[in-house]
Amino acid sequence: MDNLSTNDTICAISSPLGTGGIAVIRVSGPGTFTICNPVFRAAEKSFKLFEATSHTIHFGEIWQDDEIIDEVLVSVFRSPHSYTGEDVLEISCHGSSFIQQKILELLFSLGIRLAKPGEFTLRAFLNRKFDLSQAEAVADLIASGSRNSHDLALRQMRGGFSIKIKELRQRLIEFTALIELELDFSEENVEFASRPDLLNLLKELETDITQLIRSFSLGNVMKNGIPVAIIGKPNVGKSTLLNAILNEEKAIVSEFPGTTRDAVEDTIIIGGYSFRFIDTAGLRPAEDRVESMGIGRTWEKINEASIILYVFDATLFSFHEVMDAVSEFKDLTDNTSKRLILIGNKTDLLVELPRGFKDFVELETIFVSAKRKENIHLIAESLLKSMESEDIYVDTIVSNARHLEALQNALASIISTHHGIETGITPDLLTVDIRKALHHLGEITGEITTDEILRNIFSKFCIGK
Amino acid sequence: MDNLSTNDTICAISSPLGTGGIAVIRVSGPGTFTICNPVFRAAEKSFKLFEATSHTIHFGEIWQDDEIIDEVLVSVFRSPHSYTGEDVLEISCHGSSFIQQKILELLFSLGIRLAKPGEFTLRAFLNRKFDLSQAEAVADLIASGSRNSHDLALRQMRGGFSIKIKELRQRLIEFTALIELELDFSEENVEFASRPDLLNLLKELETDITQLIRSFSLGNVMKNGIPVAIIGKPNVGKSTLLNAILNEEKAIVSEFPGTTRDAVEDTIIIGGYSFRFIDTAGLRPAEDRVESMGIGRTWEKINEASIILYVFDATLFSFHEVMDAVSEFKDLTDNTSKRLILIGNKTDLLVELPRGFKDFVELETIFVSAKRKENIHLIAESLLKSMESEDIYVDTIVSNARHLEALQNALASIISTHHGIETGITPDLLTVDIRKALHHLGEITGEITTDEILRNIFSKFCIGK
Repeated sequence: MDNLSTNDTICAISSPLGTGGIAVIRVSGPGTFTICNPVFRAAEKSFKLFEATSHTIHFGEIWQDDEIIDEVLVSVFRSPHSYTGEDVLEISCHGSSFIQQKILELLFSLGIRLAKPGEFTLRAFLNRKFDLSQAEAVADLIASGSRNSHDLALRQMRGGFSIKIKELRQRLIEFTALIELELDFSEENVEFASRPDLLNLLKELETDITQLIRSFSLGNVMKNGIPVAIIGKPNVGKSTLLNAILNEEKAIVSEFPGTTRDAVEDTIIIGGYSFRFIDTAGLRPAEDRVESMGIGRTWEKINEASIILYVFDATLFSFHEVMDAVSEFKDLTDNTSKRLILIGNKTDLLVELPRGFKDFVELETIFVSAKRKENIHLIAESLLKSMESEDIYVDTIVSNARHLEALQNALASIISTHHGIETGITPDLLTVDIRKALHHLGEITGEITTDEILRNIFSKFCIGK
Repeated sequence: MDNLSTNDTICAISSPLGTGGIAVIRVSGPGTFTICNPVFRAAEKSFKLFEATSHTIHFGEIWQDDEIIDEVLVSVFRSPHSYTGEDVLEISCHGSSFIQQKILELLFSLGIRLAKPGEFTLRAFLNRKFDLSQAEAVADLIASGSRNSHDLALRQMRGGFSIKIKELRQRLIEFTALIELELDFSEENVEFASRPDLLNLLKELETDITQLIRSFSLGNVMKNGIPVAIIGKPNVGKSTLLNAILNEEKAIVSEFPGTTRDAVEDTIIIGGYSFRFIDTAGLRPAEDRVESMGIGRTWEKINEASIILYVFDATLFSFHEVMDAVSEFKDLTDNTSKRLILIGNKTDLLVELPRGFKDFVELETIFVSAKRKENIHLIAESLLKSMESEDIYVDTIVSNARHLEALQNALASIISTHHGIETGITPDLLTVDIRKALHHLGEITGEITTDEILRNIFSKFCIGK
């Protein structure tokens, strides 16, 4: 596979797949205008695609031999003023799948090949329209389904994160230059780079990078949703509750602006935050199958979750039982940032709520009837409260696992450099560690990269972007 | 409902719904550029949407208050040089559902309303960019899933059919003018319009319109698929056969170029023709439920079908049984253009094919094993043969039921005029019939129309076109 070459011309359907009013087919590469010119007949007879001004639109027809395929608009973008930086043609045709397919087939017959996933954006990166972290944000932006994941991706695409990383890296580069100068004069045993200054810089870097690494859990939550686990004994109505929460969307929408049910199963979006119910597959059937797999499974879910909904049967409960369960989780929620909410279910079978329960248990408890869908909105409100305490308006948030790994590697090298200075190692050994740190920081923005990394990143894109 | 007003500004997602590389949101109406200008920040600072040249593309950002929604390209089309004939803006944004929704919501907040289905094309019609039959063809073009339905819609959109109708209508208008002149001189009893010439014209019109009406069954088949019925006694394997045919697509594709399985259930496309299995809902479950509904149901299916596949169990069959069935259908296929194909199923249970069967039955018979999917391709080949005999390259084909009705009404009025001349009725009565014919012909191209007709036509469009 050699998808890193940019000397051929590629095409793909860039609009969502399916039927619609119009569809957009994108062509990019050095041959775009000369190859497509013969099959495009413009309304203006003397028109030639390869003579067209950049950023203009032309009405005409796409012809295959002596058959017309469609009446279209074509948008002309001349290199370097295009998305990819290459010559780009966007064909806006009628949105039938048949026409889209026919035009693609025609382009193939002209020697234009189908773009690989993300190949347009890869070319934009290779032509320096984007750095790597910005290119990655394009895919995140398209996949984003909530306000927060969208904001995060957009911020990253617009370069905020890249600037931060490049700044850290630049400061380190300056010191490296000085230390490498020492190597040239190594016999004279001079120090051009002030060791105390370098130590201070390294401490600053450690603080900054640590902060970025810490932001990952928040970034991940913003990107993938806040993990919520529903647990409890068999027959307390966990599956009914899950369904009630997931099906509550209409009611929730009216309470919180911008709230919608995500396309992804078992995820709801409340007030711009996406909440993801962990491993609910086992909960969906009528019986609570999960418990039969034993307590180990439950603990796994609890470990993954940020929020735990402990469901109990409000008609059967004894204070003892609930207290036992609570004490079991107590350590967990005390020692981590996990939040525990008790849900007393089946209130439809109660004449009145258990008296004095809240005084006794001293934990947030919500009484609901999952069956009658009563008070489910209180759970939604409470989930949202979890997020309001988080300060999501920190400057720079890491949401990409690849970036996290690079940051962790960079931090390790910086700590090692730090240690090396304290133990007085020689400049040549020092530069090895600093270069490692530079390498890992450079991986994020793509200043340092390999074909393998690029292929891996862009293969996760959709075709047509 | 007042969707025929064009003094407000409308918007909709015009690309297919869902997530993709890019999505296109279309805005049309007199306020397009002034309303959208404040939320679009172009890279060129002094840029204003309402000053932009038509058919140019501009990079910039869409802002809502102090939040950026996306980086976009906007295409500017100034009235009358746009699809609708109005000022049009096409916003090409990143293709996440979230972004598409956010931009729509922003446009709504600016007072732009969501376009109704087909409303862009309706405006194109009202602004005389299209006549009505061409506008209808746009919806057909988008819905077309086979080469033939695509060709038909494209031809109609490009005006072939309209020209034919307008020509017929024009000739009738000239005569009407002469006859109405006679009314002004009615006391003098003169004849400006030669009655023999008028009779000749009417005969020509009758021939032409009759031919158009006849083309409907072919047009309908090209548009909606050739109706095929699978019938036979219980337990002969009809449902297995249907599944085998529908699931044969891969094998079929390799045999006939351009063959694909249509998105619509129970339809396959072979060699550009779409074959539609009638009312197969009852066939899909394992048991042949249809038969339990009685023979009346079977006859209904046979009446609708152009091709009948009569399935029998090749292991159980007696010549008698098959002959009985055949004679039952004999009249039907002899007196109509319906085609009967016998399918001997379950050959997997036979050591050898029934000897002498073909000599005895003298009807096209295909032996298959639906269960083992053996020889199913022979059925596909045979279905295709049905179409090759049809001359689909006739000039003008009617494929729209509304057009058929208008043509039938026009024909009735023309026959009535014809009759009137022969019985020597007065010019004033004659003009009533001719005006009726003119009215019905005018309905097709939209020269004569009502809001109700328009609403009815455009409500069948997708939103965004």
